[in-house]
Amino acid sequence: MSLAPWRSHLARALHRNRSLVYARYLQLATIRVDGRPANRTVVFRGFLDDTDRLKFVTDSRSQKALEIDRQPWGEACWYFPETREQYRILGKLTLVGENYPDPALQKARQISWQELSDAARLQFAGPHPGEPRADAEAFAPPPPDPIQPLSHFCLLLLQPEQVDILELRGEPQNRCLYWVDGDGNWSAEAVNP
Amino acid sequence: MSLAPWRSHLARALHRNRSLVYARYLQLATIRVDGRPANRTVVFRGFLDDTDRLKFVTDSRSQKALEIDRQPWGEACWYFPETREQYRILGKLTLVGENYPDPALQKARQISWQELSDAARLQFAGPHPGEPRADAEAFAPPPPDPIQPLSHFCLLLLQPEQVDILELRGEPQNRCLYWVDGDGNWSAEAVNP
Repeated sequence: MSLAPWRSHLARALHRNRSLVYARYLQLATIRVDGRPANRTVVFRGFLDDTDRLKFVTDSRSQKALEIDRQPWGEACWYFPETREQYRILGKLTLVGENYPDPALQKARQISWQELSDAARLQFAGPHPGEPRADAEAFAPPPPDPIQPLSHFCLLLLQPEQVDILELRGEPQNRCLYWVDGDGNWSAEAVNP
Repeated sequence: MSLAPWRSHLARALHRNRSLVYARYLQLATIRVDGRPANRTVVFRGFLDDTDRLKFVTDSRSQKALEIDRQPWGEACWYFPETREQYRILGKLTLVGENYPDPALQKARQISWQELSDAARLQFAGPHPGEPRADAEAFAPPPPDPIQPLSHFCLLLLQPEQVDILELRGEPQNRCLYWVDGDGNWSAEAVNP
């Protein structure tokens, strides 16, 4: 499978913004159970193997996981401060939890767990996100197994179907839309910013 | 009217991150006409007078304006890199366009136009956003009147109903939820990150 045409632009943006740790943070919008939008910061964890699917991690106890279970569409908005570029990535989300049936994605989930820092893994051992603040001892759990993921650890995948790149630096600004058809072929068109 | 309790936290975050121009950029999620989420970067333009309503500006020709007309809920996600704080602000959006009936908000729309930089105003004089790229001359319009807004210039207001503040720096992290009742009274609760 060949990579999507926007991948080389994104690779360049990541490279040029590499001095900023938060250039790997982006905002992921989903739909709440009540139909209203939700939006939160997530950390980009690279692409799944040789695909165009973006990897994130999440906790199955979070609202985000509940929302995605019901409505799998998401749009990531990713702003690169150094190069002043915005990537909007619309696509379907897949939540790979403990009981996800695909063995290859289970393996990917396990690898994502192993690639986390100790501090990041420890967060998954903490008390239920969003519930009333627990006592201090709930925040000092024993470190979890670095090999086998905790049961509520999820790999979250975003399969892009439309990508909208805006370069704020241009005079005039440049903006390009990319979209994929059912056979996986990408098209692109320059549009007005 | 007294300010909401999360306002002092936000004022401090804005102050501590003031060296970064993009600390005033945030991501606004809305619902597309087809029900899928949309997400894009917007620039915070301050609060409306002595209210808790956040101000942004937009173009009535943009998808965002169409979406908000149909489904007024939005969630802003605002990440402050310097202090490592995230604000999630859920609320109702009001699009104050040329024909919006309220004279006070029309006045606010006019002031927002006047407060824009020349370069920002010029963008509203450009060709239709999102349409196929126009010729170069369409991007060199005469500078618009700095006093009277162009017809498709809109003030966009977000009236917060729920605010979720996450401090990533804590050990453990601190997270606090704020919500408002029908009488405008705010409640707050510390929750697990």
